[in-house]
Amino acid sequence: MALLRRLGLNKLELNRETAGSLQTQISGQLKRLIQAGAIFPGERLPSTRELANGLQVSRNTVVAAYDMLVGQGYVEAQLRSGFQVCNAAQAFRGLPTASPAEASKATPERNLVPSQPGVPVPFRPTQPDVNLFSLQIWNRHRTRVLKRGSCLLHYQSRFPVGLDELRQNVAAYLRDSRGVRCEWHEVAITNGSQQALFLLAHLLLRPGQRVCMEDPGYPGARNAWRQAGATVIPAPVDDEGICLPKEASQQASLIYVTPSHQFPLGICMSLARRLTILRTARDTGSWIVEDDYDAEFRYTSAPQPSLQSLDENRRVIYIGSFSKTLFPALRLGYVVLPPPLVELFAALKSIADDYSPLIDQATLASFLESGAFYAHLRRCRKHYAERQSYFLEQVSRLGLPLSFPITGRGMNLAGMLPEGVNDRTCSDRLRHAGLDVPPLSRYAVGPTPPGLLFGLAAFDKKAIQRGVARMAPVLERKGMDLSA
Amino acid sequence: MALLRRLGLNKLELNRETAGSLQTQISGQLKRLIQAGAIFPGERLPSTRELANGLQVSRNTVVAAYDMLVGQGYVEAQLRSGFQVCNAAQAFRGLPTASPAEASKATPERNLVPSQPGVPVPFRPTQPDVNLFSLQIWNRHRTRVLKRGSCLLHYQSRFPVGLDELRQNVAAYLRDSRGVRCEWHEVAITNGSQQALFLLAHLLLRPGQRVCMEDPGYPGARNAWRQAGATVIPAPVDDEGICLPKEASQQASLIYVTPSHQFPLGICMSLARRLTILRTARDTGSWIVEDDYDAEFRYTSAPQPSLQSLDENRRVIYIGSFSKTLFPALRLGYVVLPPPLVELFAALKSIADDYSPLIDQATLASFLESGAFYAHLRRCRKHYAERQSYFLEQVSRLGLPLSFPITGRGMNLAGMLPEGVNDRTCSDRLRHAGLDVPPLSRYAVGPTPPGLLFGLAAFDKKAIQRGVARMAPVLERKGMDLSA
Repeated sequence: MALLRRLGLNKLELNRETAGSLQTQISGQLKRLIQAGAIFPGERLPSTRELANGLQVSRNTVVAAYDMLVGQGYVEAQLRSGFQVCNAAQAFRGLPTASPAEASKATPERNLVPSQPGVPVPFRPTQPDVNLFSLQIWNRHRTRVLKRGSCLLHYQSRFPVGLDELRQNVAAYLRDSRGVRCEWHEVAITNGSQQALFLLAHLLLRPGQRVCMEDPGYPGARNAWRQAGATVIPAPVDDEGICLPKEASQQASLIYVTPSHQFPLGICMSLARRLTILRTARDTGSWIVEDDYDAEFRYTSAPQPSLQSLDENRRVIYIGSFSKTLFPALRLGYVVLPPPLVELFAALKSIADDYSPLIDQATLASFLESGAFYAHLRRCRKHYAERQSYFLEQVSRLGLPLSFPITGRGMNLAGMLPEGVNDRTCSDRLRHAGLDVPPLSRYAVGPTPPGLLFGLAAFDKKAIQRGVARMAPVLERKGMDLSA
Repeated sequence: MALLRRLGLNKLELNRETAGSLQTQISGQLKRLIQAGAIFPGERLPSTRELANGLQVSRNTVVAAYDMLVGQGYVEAQLRSGFQVCNAAQAFRGLPTASPAEASKATPERNLVPSQPGVPVPFRPTQPDVNLFSLQIWNRHRTRVLKRGSCLLHYQSRFPVGLDELRQNVAAYLRDSRGVRCEWHEVAITNGSQQALFLLAHLLLRPGQRVCMEDPGYPGARNAWRQAGATVIPAPVDDEGICLPKEASQQASLIYVTPSHQFPLGICMSLARRLTILRTARDTGSWIVEDDYDAEFRYTSAPQPSLQSLDENRRVIYIGSFSKTLFPALRLGYVVLPPPLVELFAALKSIADDYSPLIDQATLASFLESGAFYAHLRRCRKHYAERQSYFLEQVSRLGLPLSFPITGRGMNLAGMLPEGVNDRTCSDRLRHAGLDVPPLSRYAVGPTPPGLLFGLAAFDKKAIQRGVARMAPVLERKGMDLSA
């Protein structure tokens, strides 16, 4: 205790209720004493046992705190004689080292309180049910691929667009399930489909060029085109899909569509319309980006092959993601590129971030190869189909003023509101009732009929029932003064 | 067996020596029979036991093959009555579904043979020793964070630049170890430091603007500036660091430097030079990007705080990576942004790829918090220091014509060759001897003295000894006709 007193360590104050762990508090306070010159370079620190007794914490806590100080260069471990303050520690004297408390005092701005990730609120769209995903099976594949040796941990700059085994398995999956025409080397792995959109924007568009896309449409895509300096031309959507404005489409460098399940309205593009846009692209030399974001989820009708499968001229770039079929935190997506773009895209990906994380890539390759992916999809399809039906039953049971023109596929349902209703007001009121149901107008640049977008995949029947019940008072016709 | 014969399944040919697993071969061949109309929709498939016997494979293999077909929508599982071909399978009739063999025939181009990731060859630069990294400890943290619930698997678009807990721990680490002045919300997590460079290029540079960077210098950075359309102005490096060309630096929008350990020469920038470039940036309003890529590894001298810590005007953007301190496959890096750039960078990252993988982020936060990161760094430092010394001993023992002006820090050593030697020829000959030692001229735009860059961190003493022995015949003075 004499040593503790001499070094001022008897004055360390530990707060057992704050967010910081005890070891971080101890190492932080010791560090400040060293920086302030209260403990000199060369001075021996109390033994871990001694300090643990003095502070009434476990010895492991002190060991961890000392380890942090050693790692940070403030303290050296001496064989058999404990720990002493390094000479090098002087280098940091006088540098600003705000404690977490000081740091928070120094930053009174908004949004600077750290927060934790949360779970989605009903009926936030495009959320898969991550609880249906078996992390246990996933981790088994991860363990297996890690046993192959250290290669997976190394730099692998030869693989900017993904491990070959993953590209092969993705190609096989897309050929089989979506009719996509591709060789494995035309598949590029990206950080989710958003990165594919962003890199394609930078690869294919020059500032001022035009992109024709569905309106309402996917904001992530719109942002990518705009960020690259392109002008976005909104194209209306009817019950066959995108209606290309004649003149504008002649001048478009790129056409962006979601043919399997239009985002957010849900329309499956008709064959006639598919052939029209393929013809336009052939004639004008524009690229088509087909975003097949949730085509895996179809419940009542036969699968519709991708637009890309109909294209004889290789103008279609096909993109998709494992964010919805597995889990969103994974950040792995893919793009199938026409041959002239393969090498250009790889070069750009390499400059953008070298390559996507390798352990996840190898795990996914093994997961696909084993068939576990298909088993998971089947399980999701079953639950998502049930949830969609259940939701529709509940809405109809309560007689809510919503109509659902397109059902039987996808993770979301677009629910149309009576004419004259302001869907933003409606969505705001639902938010006050604890529900996350965006208005269709949020996805639109031009005018669009009022409606709401419901994501049903992530919510079980109980949550759906409660959510629909909470909607009722907001949407009940009598009280619905929502035209403001 | 009758059913097998009737369906043509007795003709399935399995190749036990090719790359494809038996289950993939079985599902692939069944699929082609269905597509070809040889097996009709509605038809019942043989039981898994029956087919396993017929093909002399394990029953699990057939179960997995059927699972794949079910997942792909070709086959349906019927409760208690086995598997039958879906009606939906018709949709895929006639679509191209090349078998791997057909695919490889169709693509005679170079580089299309799939390959596996490999390990680095001595003395490939900037490779950490991934075998020093304890995956066991890492996985323990991963398991712990996954136990917290499903939040980590969900979409978390509120966190484009990383989980707050990770940003806090990175900020604390950088304040303590590198003297970086930062609040946690000024730290953005990226996919390795390469993504930080790429996004900064798009955020800060317009086509035609100028970037001043060290020559020789880091090609990943040069590529990022050029891809954004900037003009790169090479600045020579002397023994105090970058020499800013007076006129050019007046016009530069951005200055890129590696002050702790110049890449590739190894110089630690002098205090005088640091103050000069900070003054230039203040006066011209240009940004400085400080890439602190391997500053954690210093063996003989006291740690030198970052350039950012000296900057009173918040013109320095500080970037770093866990690729070298942990393992390259992780793809997590960070950037510390001056306040005016924080929100702009977050908006761009969100458009670029939403956010970086969340499970890895949370695992890393826990790994940092626990002190395991610091223990790992200490271990690496010890080994890397020993390897560097051992390499220098071996080179000197054999009297190789290489001089090493700067030692005692970093993962690489620049070895200078006698004047007049062509370092590219030399590097080529070393490659023929099985060594990966790039010439310094590869990193330079302008003229640079001949030399080679040796990475020592990833190679143990045995590998170093063998590598140096293999270098000897190439570099021996007498036989060295390397001026061509």
